[in-house]
Amino acid sequence: MNNNFFSMFVPKKNEYFVLLSEMADAIVEVANLNIECITAETHEDIVEYSSKIREQKKIGSVLLGKIVRELHNTFVAPFDREDINNLAIYMKDVIDHISSCAKRFMMYSPKNMPSDSRLLAELVKDAAETIKKAINSLDMLKKNPQNITHLCKKLENIENNSDEIYENFLIKLFKEEKDAIEIIKLKDILYELEHATDSAEHVGKVIGTIVVKYA
Amino acid sequence: MNNNFFSMFVPKKNEYFVLLSEMADAIVEVANLNIECITAETHEDIVEYSSKIREQKKIGSVLLGKIVRELHNTFVAPFDREDINNLAIYMKDVIDHISSCAKRFMMYSPKNMPSDSRLLAELVKDAAETIKKAINSLDMLKKNPQNITHLCKKLENIENNSDEIYENFLIKLFKEEKDAIEIIKLKDILYELEHATDSAEHVGKVIGTIVVKYA
Amino acid sequence: MNNNFFSMFVPKKNEYFVLLSEMADAIVEVANLNIECITAETHEDIVEYSSKIREQKKIGSVLLGKIVRELHNTFVAPFDREDINNLAIYMKDVIDHISSCAKRFMMYSPKNMPSDSRLLAELVKDAAETIKKAINSLDMLKKNPQNITHLCKKLENIENNSDEIYENFLIKLFKEEKDAIEIIKLKDILYELEHATDSAEHVGKVIGTIVVKYA
Repeated sequence: MNNNFFSMFVPKKNEYFVLLSEMADAIVEVANLNIECITAETHEDIVEYSSKIREQKKIGSVLLGKIVRELHNTFVAPFDREDINNLAIYMKDVIDHISSCAKRFMMYSPKNMPSDSRLLAELVKDAAETIKKAINSLDMLKKNPQNITHLCKKLENIENNSDEIYENFLIKLFKEEKDAIEIIKLKDILYELEHATDSAEHVGKVIGTIVVKYA
Repeated sequence: MNNNFFSMFVPKKNEYFVLLSEMADAIVEVANLNIECITAETHEDIVEYSSKIREQKKIGSVLLGKIVRELHNTFVAPFDREDINNLAIYMKDVIDHISSCAKRFMMYSPKNMPSDSRLLAELVKDAAETIKKAINSLDMLKKNPQNITHLCKKLENIENNSDEIYENFLIKLFKEEKDAIEIIKLKDILYELEHATDSAEHVGKVIGTIVVKYA
Repeated sequence: MNNNFFSMFVPKKNEYFVLLSEMADAIVEVANLNIECITAETHEDIVEYSSKIREQKKIGSVLLGKIVRELHNTFVAPFDREDINNLAIYMKDVIDHISSCAKRFMMYSPKNMPSDSRLLAELVKDAAETIKKAINSLDMLKKNPQNITHLCKKLENIENNSDEIYENFLIKLFKEEKDAIEIIKLKDILYELEHATDSAEHVGKVIGTIVVKYA
């Protein structure tokens, strides 16, 4: 793109960091939109937020495609190609699970959303912001590896919290809800949020591996 | 097998292409049988088509095993071993999802199948035939890469269509069906068809990667 | 750890074998606890066995982390690193599916458990013990490869049996159970056991690959 004469003298940020950082932005964006979506009061709002989420999901797909192509085409990868590949795939998984939550909410129209859904969506947002911080620290990995390790640990904790909330939600759901169709709906919708934090933890694990190898 | 004196003078088609092509045939076969199965009018017919599908699934397992073993034993792979491995795995996934659809249909005996199931099954058949064309073009990759890229793009479009049909089906299902057990059954059965087109798109993505590397 | 003067003269068992063997022990332990759990008569017992299973799951996570780190840090791996990596992941999957079964049983409190759940849990236990035998034979692979191949074949047979039991269970469930909520519960709980044997078969496939390469 910028291959004109002057760009030769400007140090170019490694393309991988740019793409991964854009993917992290999409994760944060989709996590915020998801909270708007599942707390929206009218069906029109739900449809609107869902379609914005769908746009972010498409951006995520394009970014994943670019990263995978870069891995085949270029010679200079800052880390093991396999780690970058897994990182991109798991980041895309976070987006996919969040967008599945919003889509199911829109399609199923449950009678009402339990307060646990809001709690889980907030945890997902927290995970998204943690991923963004970790990814944006990767290009200065050697300066402060402890900081990145701390963020990976935080993703693990978020997953544990999310696991516990989802578990308690299910116990309550099967104890209190007598309408099987509502059970199907809510179980499916909140499941995606719990899995979004699982994928976020996987992102943390890959980043942890990179820290071990390169810090 | 054909290592007699004369076979030495016959150019041998690369074993990978033969095995992948046989796997593609099994996909097409299972997609056709699935349409017969889910539109069959008697339980005997359903059981019969299910058992034919099960046979194709076994053939797929044997082929996958052969391909994986070839990757360890032989020196000449036409493409990256990892790509061939992924290709075989995703092709087997297509077979597995289609056969799960038929098996669930047989096991669950839903009261009636929605017209969307037929639409999805036709898309799956279209995807199967597209995979077959793409696989059979792989050994002449350099001659016409645009053609293969076009087929990969088609697999992506089929997945998008299938996604939309499944989504609309779910919206209708939760709006109209009041019997929770029927919801469980139909949601599960059609889910497998939607996922068969997902796996078909994955096949397309791997083929696209091979085109980028070798065309 | 044992890097004192004398340990230099003691032949050290390859660390991978030690870790994989500990993972196999955790699988056997969790399979046994699961049988206790799903046949327990009081809710207190169910909660107690569930929490013991959770402990084993944590041990599995720690072992998986150690194995993955060893793969990056050390030079001497007895087999292809990718095979060891897949082996550890699939072994952990066996633990995860078994512990999901127990957790769901505890959370959902189904009215009663079908006899098929006991049959499946026994098959899972059989698979766990078979994995343990195969793993513990890996360090003497060249002495008796036929024995290991036989154990891998056994894991495949167990999966086929488990598939058939789960299938018949579903047919009966949808024919006889009229309470949709009970269907959701039992289908989900037994699904995990069927998937535990799937993962056990994957373990067998990876071991089979190792035998082909190194025996």
